[in-house]
Amino acid sequence: VNFASDNTTGAAPEIAAALARANQDAHAMPYGNDPLTKRLTAKFSRLFEREVAVFPIATGTAANVLGLSLSVPPYGGIFCLESSHIYEDECGAAEMYTGGARPLPLPGRDGKLLAPELAKALSLYKPGNVHRVQPAAVSITQIGELGHIYSPGEIARLAKLAKRHGLVVHMDGARFANAVAALGCRPADITWRAGVDILTFGGTKNGCFGTEAVIVFDKAKAASFAYRRKRAGHLFSKMRFLSAQLDAYIDKGLWLALAGHANAMMRRLANGLARLPDVELNHMPRGNLVFLNMPAAMVRALEKAGYAFYHWGNARWHTARLVTAFSTDPGHVDGFVATARAASSGRKPKQPMAFLPRP
Amino acid sequence: VNFASDNTTGAAPEIAAALARANQDAHAMPYGNDPLTKRLTAKFSRLFEREVAVFPIATGTAANVLGLSLSVPPYGGIFCLESSHIYEDECGAAEMYTGGARPLPLPGRDGKLLAPELAKALSLYKPGNVHRVQPAAVSITQIGELGHIYSPGEIARLAKLAKRHGLVVHMDGARFANAVAALGCRPADITWRAGVDILTFGGTKNGCFGTEAVIVFDKAKAASFAYRRKRAGHLFSKMRFLSAQLDAYIDKGLWLALAGHANAMMRRLANGLARLPDVELNHMPRGNLVFLNMPAAMVRALEKAGYAFYHWGNARWHTARLVTAFSTDPGHVDGFVATARAASSGRKPKQPMAFLPRP
Amino acid sequence: VNFASDNTTGAAPEIAAALARANQDAHAMPYGNDPLTKRLTAKFSRLFEREVAVFPIATGTAANVLGLSLSVPPYGGIFCLESSHIYEDECGAAEMYTGGARPLPLPGRDGKLLAPELAKALSLYKPGNVHRVQPAAVSITQIGELGHIYSPGEIARLAKLAKRHGLVVHMDGARFANAVAALGCRPADITWRAGVDILTFGGTKNGCFGTEAVIVFDKAKAASFAYRRKRAGHLFSKMRFLSAQLDAYIDKGLWLALAGHANAMMRRLANGLARLPDVELNHMPRGNLVFLNMPAAMVRALEKAGYAFYHWGNARWHTARLVTAFSTDPGHVDGFVATARAASSGRKPKQPMAFLPRP
Amino acid sequence: VNFASDNTTGAAPEIAAALARANQDAHAMPYGNDPLTKRLTAKFSRLFEREVAVFPIATGTAANVLGLSLSVPPYGGIFCLESSHIYEDECGAAEMYTGGARPLPLPGRDGKLLAPELAKALSLYKPGNVHRVQPAAVSITQIGELGHIYSPGEIARLAKLAKRHGLVVHMDGARFANAVAALGCRPADITWRAGVDILTFGGTKNGCFGTEAVIVFDKAKAASFAYRRKRAGHLFSKMRFLSAQLDAYIDKGLWLALAGHANAMMRRLANGLARLPDVELNHMPRGNLVFLNMPAAMVRALEKAGYAFYHWGNARWHTARLVTAFSTDPGHVDGFVATARAASSGRKPKQPMAFLPRP
Repeated sequence: VNFASDNTTGAAPEIAAALARANQDAHAMPYGNDPLTKRLTAKFSRLFEREVAVFPIATGTAANVLGLSLSVPPYGGIFCLESSHIYEDECGAAEMYTGGARPLPLPGRDGKLLAPELAKALSLYKPGNVHRVQPAAVSITQIGELGHIYSPGEIARLAKLAKRHGLVVHMDGARFANAVAALGCRPADITWRAGVDILTFGGTKNGCFGTEAVIVFDKAKAASFAYRRKRAGHLFSKMRFLSAQLDAYIDKGLWLALAGHANAMMRRLANGLARLPDVELNHMPRGNLVFLNMPAAMVRALEKAGYAFYHWGNARWHTARLVTAFSTDPGHVDGFVATARAASSGRKPKQPMAFLPRP
Repeated sequence: VNFASDNTTGAAPEIAAALARANQDAHAMPYGNDPLTKRLTAKFSRLFEREVAVFPIATGTAANVLGLSLSVPPYGGIFCLESSHIYEDECGAAEMYTGGARPLPLPGRDGKLLAPELAKALSLYKPGNVHRVQPAAVSITQIGELGHIYSPGEIARLAKLAKRHGLVVHMDGARFANAVAALGCRPADITWRAGVDILTFGGTKNGCFGTEAVIVFDKAKAASFAYRRKRAGHLFSKMRFLSAQLDAYIDKGLWLALAGHANAMMRRLANGLARLPDVELNHMPRGNLVFLNMPAAMVRALEKAGYAFYHWGNARWHTARLVTAFSTDPGHVDGFVATARAASSGRKPKQPMAFLPRP
Repeated sequence: VNFASDNTTGAAPEIAAALARANQDAHAMPYGNDPLTKRLTAKFSRLFEREVAVFPIATGTAANVLGLSLSVPPYGGIFCLESSHIYEDECGAAEMYTGGARPLPLPGRDGKLLAPELAKALSLYKPGNVHRVQPAAVSITQIGELGHIYSPGEIARLAKLAKRHGLVVHMDGARFANAVAALGCRPADITWRAGVDILTFGGTKNGCFGTEAVIVFDKAKAASFAYRRKRAGHLFSKMRFLSAQLDAYIDKGLWLALAGHANAMMRRLANGLARLPDVELNHMPRGNLVFLNMPAAMVRALEKAGYAFYHWGNARWHTARLVTAFSTDPGHVDGFVATARAASSGRKPKQPMAFLPRP
Repeated sequence: VNFASDNTTGAAPEIAAALARANQDAHAMPYGNDPLTKRLTAKFSRLFEREVAVFPIATGTAANVLGLSLSVPPYGGIFCLESSHIYEDECGAAEMYTGGARPLPLPGRDGKLLAPELAKALSLYKPGNVHRVQPAAVSITQIGELGHIYSPGEIARLAKLAKRHGLVVHMDGARFANAVAALGCRPADITWRAGVDILTFGGTKNGCFGTEAVIVFDKAKAASFAYRRKRAGHLFSKMRFLSAQLDAYIDKGLWLALAGHANAMMRRLANGLARLPDVELNHMPRGNLVFLNMPAAMVRALEKAGYAFYHWGNARWHTARLVTAFSTDPGHVDGFVATARAASSGRKPKQPMAFLPRP
């Protein structure tokens, strides 16, 4: 039973069926010149309530950095959280795709990059100082890598500041569905209406085999995308197999239904764990992701019972990351909580636990 | 009915079934830490009769340039045919992945890059001349972009020369299966035994949804692959869905059976067309690909009858490319030939036709 | 006595004096914020009869590729002669500075890239074909690497075609002074008035210690130059020492006087050699550079007499390159001719000699 | 009178004379094939008491990143201080030259990157974690950007740790001469004997027109340098004019004499300022560089008196950077101190002043 990541899951049945259907079409012109791909534009434009450019991309890393590469010159800087995926988990992909631009890591507040921190950072980058990289973009992750969710207002304030300084606003939405489901907002509310220019619209973690979509809200800015995608080896000859997944994913609200389930499972999990005095959550999650501190003995008990998840720490305390998914079984959640409860000391630790950085 | 490319096809039933099976596994560790991916090494090592490093990669372009990037420094040069995929059809991917190395286009003989042409080219690149890019690799395509097949001896002679000059030998095997099926040789005979160091082992054009494998014959040379793949955004979180395809593809000779069918269909097509005096083939194909000249009127007749294929030319003559695939219907082949015959003038053109370059 | 290259020379006395003068200024703000650098803009704008952006750069290679990097995206292509410096003699600098764009080598006619060849090449690059690099620039060398000089009309016809296809026009003017001196035209006539967008204005080969200027005729296009220069390590802290050279170089026509002498010396040399029946010039030079075929014995006699120059060939014939410079001594020219004459067989070879490619 | 930077100076008389001498040589083979360049190897090898590879490079930025590019792969990470030149003042040059590697900014202690901070940073980069950049190098600056000097022991402890983790050790020695002069050690003691692999040996700030040397202590590691330099446009055709400067610079201890003077001037300046209660130095400098806090009114008085230097701050307090050089006049130092003293309030501020980050 796996709470390690939402990418340990398979594909949702509706997605699998869509792929099988697409395969019944004996012949389709390659490289996106097929009907399934072509209709994505209209479909995503409806979803986002404006005309958008949409590009199916197989991995989240590629989607992020292709999106950024549209607007960030090789001498540019990209403000982001020091815990962000583009900084910590993409092995320098941003540098590769922009031709050398630099992610500029900033400390966050509650796992988020908010306007005040950006303002402080910007004050150290005087425009026209040729000795420093030139601020070109700010990238935020929704929901954040530590599980937090940006409100529409938080995004709008950050984006407004960013634009006053000429920065493009990028959103890594690997778990975008979880955010929309949790906020109960419209997709536009936390993207272009709040000032986001480019979005990685995640599918893989929420029921697809392996597909994201890069959404560019100002189509004119997407002019170079097709060439950048091709030279990166991310133009699929049989692109319809990506498009079929995306098509089914956003059909009749499937994506939100799947994410809603994942969020509900996380709520159930967090509620159960929050009652244990020797467990400390980094926040009360509304999405599908939480970090927590727990006694090392509790970790051992859970692993012995067959629960898999990432954790790191010392002989007494561990920091752990728990993730639920579209396919998480409520019974597994309850079992996890019960096992943790059984292993709990029932006592609060004397000193507050510090969340340990992930190695 | 489509003879435009083998990548207009879907996936073979066995591949589709393998993917569906892999999806029944509710949870698998991501990023290749799953059992399906892990057993690929042993399976491909058996296939190639030596221990190899194998990496599932979703597109042929990415597979080619990740392979090349292992050994080609940013100031390096890569000898290749001027008609090769890495030179003409990858929008500068080789440059992107190597950090700026240069594909050096050479003229071919019968669609192949053979030792004499390489020798001539090498004579203009003196080692240690810092003003020029430094020859670092030679890349050949098997079967070639114009349909020709390298014999084991041709490869061995080229590779021997290459190695004497310190070049790594790369093979773009997007249609490797068609070559092995046509030659009736063992995979090793036209790869490492002949001196090939790195192979793009194609799957997509021959029955997969979208998967190739990069094979590195000297495992020590593959040490940086995992990092290069990740930063290129080609590390799939749900990698087992690529691995499942490859696993089924090489299981019980499926790959060769599929390619054998494609080759047989091409033979049938070529035999039929070769009899028409106003059709000229660029060679008598043993693989699944041919170029030919035909009257513009014949092109029109075929398109009117519903046959799709790439062609270009002027008011009188067109050069066309025809490709068969694992799924080609013999009836469609016969129909194509019959339509062409009906449109044939029955007369040889007075002057030989020149094959026109593809725009 | 050296006819190998104009870069074997030292600095002209006027340039050396200007550098010494600049060094008497005990303090000057660094990185180009000094008076000498600041006045270059006005001075070059007068020289070119329009407002220009000007950037001192220490080497010709850097000047060329920084200029190109302003307008060529990483997926772009740069048409150039296969014998051009950016293709053959810069070890992939164009790729490095553009982030991976590709120089596209074309055959020339009389050592020049003219409109018809460009038109033919462009016909193979359909706009919007994502599989190929996208034509973005054409680069020509004035005077050419084989010694030829483009006329204003030739440049205008090439540039007009280039612009119709959206290409930027770049001129490598390492020997720009020699061209202007030979043509007796105004600098504007063979640059922006003929459609050139970016110029490498050479100084090093014609009397400077080591300085070129990148001239951008549309200042708006130069916006990113300062950042690109800095990240390439080509922003000099003591930039005034480059600027002082350029300032003196274009003062009171010094640059044209120096180049005029070099051209005159070449004319004297070529006239003398053209009379020898076993010497064949590649063209009758108007600039300061010529290629020629001569008997291997003549090469030996010249070297024995102490003349240094580049040559390559076989036991009977060699191709040689001869270059004169601002500092060439007429007596040395006469001595070279006399030595060649004494070694001449006095007979025309039975078969025409082929110019051998430089290794 | 300028205390802004040691790069506002001109060239020392001995260097200027050497350049003029080199210019009397009418002809010299280009690209470093001249006698002056060739003898640098022996000369620097003697200076460093072992055989070294030495490459003249015109700017410090280029020297730093060419050196790093020898050993840092595009997916690599370079540990450095967050205040280091390669992180803050080279506009992404490290990224450009390594093909995308990432400088990893670390906090320092007393302006230095010491072993404990590196150990902490390394603990977060597990080898083989493909999601993160791979630690490949550590780069320190001697003397540091804030004026501090690493002792031989500090370097040795850092280098020992670095090597245990497979990191190459790079030293930005833009002010290397000031460090050697201050420490009274041998050049080897703070470089290869302490574990440094690659050194930027600065010349420009200490009396050259514009020349540094990259020193590679293990010659085998320098194999690709010549190609990397050429493609970066940093191979000078008239290289002897760089070599002549370096040759004179290290001749008969000139470099140490010049640096010794700069250090002495700084000592005199710091001693004078340290006595003022409303001036706070960031450290008692042994080199030629110091940061200090002073009242805004004092800044105004100094500027009014004609002293130029960098400073930033608010209405009451400013942080300033003062730098002395080989050519600093003792009278100017005394004048600066006297002016500051006259503007001093004579009172200590009630609260300690915080050093403000440079914008």
